[in-house]
Amino acid sequence: MRSLLLLLALLLQTSLQAECLTRGTGDMGVIIERASGSLLVINTSEHDALFRVEGLGDLSHASVVFSRDERYAYVFGRDGGLTQVDILCGLIVKRIIQGGNSIGGAISQDGRLVAVSNYKPGGVKVFSSDDLSLVADIPATPFKDKRSKTVGLVDAPDQRFVFALYDTGETWILDMTDPKNPGITRFTDTGRLPYDGLITPDGRYYINGLFGEDGLALLDLWHPEKGMRRILDHYGKGEQQLPVYKMPHLEGWAIAGDRAFLPAVGHHEVLVVNTGDWKEAGRIPVHGQPVFVMARPDGRQLWVNFAFPDNDTVQVIDSETLKIIKTLKTGKGTLHMEFTPRGEEVWISVRDRDEIQIYDTRTLELKKRLPARKPSGIFFTDRAHKTGL
Amino acid sequence: MRSLLLLLALLLQTSLQAECLTRGTGDMGVIIERASGSLLVINTSEHDALFRVEGLGDLSHASVVFSRDERYAYVFGRDGGLTQVDILCGLIVKRIIQGGNSIGGAISQDGRLVAVSNYKPGGVKVFSSDDLSLVADIPATPFKDKRSKTVGLVDAPDQRFVFALYDTGETWILDMTDPKNPGITRFTDTGRLPYDGLITPDGRYYINGLFGEDGLALLDLWHPEKGMRRILDHYGKGEQQLPVYKMPHLEGWAIAGDRAFLPAVGHHEVLVVNTGDWKEAGRIPVHGQPVFVMARPDGRQLWVNFAFPDNDTVQVIDSETLKIIKTLKTGKGTLHMEFTPRGEEVWISVRDRDEIQIYDTRTLELKKRLPARKPSGIFFTDRAHKTGL
Repeated sequence: MRSLLLLLALLLQTSLQAECLTRGTGDMGVIIERASGSLLVINTSEHDALFRVEGLGDLSHASVVFSRDERYAYVFGRDGGLTQVDILCGLIVKRIIQGGNSIGGAISQDGRLVAVSNYKPGGVKVFSSDDLSLVADIPATPFKDKRSKTVGLVDAPDQRFVFALYDTGETWILDMTDPKNPGITRFTDTGRLPYDGLITPDGRYYINGLFGEDGLALLDLWHPEKGMRRILDHYGKGEQQLPVYKMPHLEGWAIAGDRAFLPAVGHHEVLVVNTGDWKEAGRIPVHGQPVFVMARPDGRQLWVNFAFPDNDTVQVIDSETLKIIKTLKTGKGTLHMEFTPRGEEVWISVRDRDEIQIYDTRTLELKKRLPARKPSGIFFTDRAHKTGL
Repeated sequence: MRSLLLLLALLLQTSLQAECLTRGTGDMGVIIERASGSLLVINTSEHDALFRVEGLGDLSHASVVFSRDERYAYVFGRDGGLTQVDILCGLIVKRIIQGGNSIGGAISQDGRLVAVSNYKPGGVKVFSSDDLSLVADIPATPFKDKRSKTVGLVDAPDQRFVFALYDTGETWILDMTDPKNPGITRFTDTGRLPYDGLITPDGRYYINGLFGEDGLALLDLWHPEKGMRRILDHYGKGEQQLPVYKMPHLEGWAIAGDRAFLPAVGHHEVLVVNTGDWKEAGRIPVHGQPVFVMARPDGRQLWVNFAFPDNDTVQVIDSETLKIIKTLKTGKGTLHMEFTPRGEEVWISVRDRDEIQIYDTRTLELKKRLPARKPSGIFFTDRAHKTGL
């Protein structure tokens, strides 16, 4: 009888384990289902959904980073929630409310630290990626009776994070080499109201968008001693104020070869910029106000989606001729795009059709539709291996 | 009794399954143990070995590619062996002898096809990555009473492979979009005796090294109609013949930003080349004849190892100042280097010490030694997500 109980116990354990998958995680990803606070776990080899994970709170403007083994997704919610999801088992490992109102996060180069930038209370918190225990709390500069909002948080090489202080116009480099003694380098001449940031794929340049004035602020992380530098003076709303339906995310920039392609603010244009001198090299007229301009991983094509009321369309641009080679009518609420790691496909979320559309990037034809509940952001696991994603 | 047998059967299955790991594969890799024909499966988060897989045949000059889910390693042996290894279970899934003498392989952009280039019989064979069944057999151009050796095989965007024909001086583009009707584009003006090839990380330029003459042959895959172009006329053994201990692999090139860094042939130098016009921009004196010049993923450093008799040393170069910032005495038989995906560490195989040395790329200090049997090549799974690796 005793051995039978043991057998049963072992069996029970088996059935629990059987709910987790033994499979490679390199072809997996997650899709944010904003309205239902859930996450769809997918794989890009068979084009199917593996799990739906629920209970993630307010997922508007949610973003995701992955652990260095590509098993865990860390989901940053607008409600200050930070949730660790096991994509092999389809369950929440841990969920904390780490702040009152947060706006994105990043994972350190070594994968051991997850950082979140908060509006309220203004500052950055750093957690262990193992168990979400607090490692460091970095309050922002006081502003009026509160602390400045922090925005544009990215990871950088050599175990650093970089972010901007919206209210006080600063950029900070946070060095987490020694987690018990975080090092902070402050740049107070960033410009008025930095609202977002990006880091170039090589981790060298950090760039802030400015809400309070035109132009962008650039920091060369190879030479922080040179301080912040202003580039693209005319970038922004400009003198001739235009209705801006959505301030473009800076993550919406594409960098391909020695050129950057970025959404013009308020105009139906994609700007072309030389990354050598950060000067404008051209403009491409497009269908609407661009939101994301994304480069196919080989830099051969740019895929662009648009702000309301033109958010039913995606355009594909040849990065060499700068000509539009295809206009796709994907449907209302076309919110995000993600390329498979080697770029043979792009997955596009179409909120109002409750579906993901998968396109072949060679033929530019639709290959498959995958049902999802009001999908927004799409994040594939290969981001684990990249700086700034 | 019957139910007890069922229980036992289930248990047995459990114990078999228990040998496989349920874990993410993004931080895994394999190390070639040449002398014993074995493979060490490792993970870079805990710095430990998970499995040793034996029975892989002759692994001299072996190379490895990974499936798109990062679960399977395909090992190309010098003996014509092609072995599919499951790194989550530590076992050989399938092993075939596909040719008499082979020299490397590649995996297609979509991950469905594995191609091998053969010396004997000269040509390329393409297999299904699922079960290693033959999909296409591409014999090379006849030469004397045989067929030309094929070398320098790489994958390219849009489901293509590119390779060179050593004896007949050709470069072929193999289009596998329709696996039943492979398309071949031939370039017959490659130069004398191409011995190796590389593709730039963006998948645009394919470059052949030439054994029969100085200079390199370049093909712009965005513009194949322009044909092959000769670059770096003096690259090679040159008029003043020097003892060349080892023709450097072209995979030993580093491309960082708009510059390529490559081993000079027969000289104690690393060449600096502008990738804009493919002209030489400088030379860096180093400790010996370089074999591999590898860029840290952010392009900030170059790590160089050397041919016999200087193969006990690694030098680190600052990619901006071109100065040597560290000389490491790693030990005799320092054969290969591999960076972790985001570059915080580099793993170095030191054959004669039967160990892998793991360095922190920020401090340039040794972090750990990991025992391995006469290790040579090191391959991490993030290669699955990259073109040409």
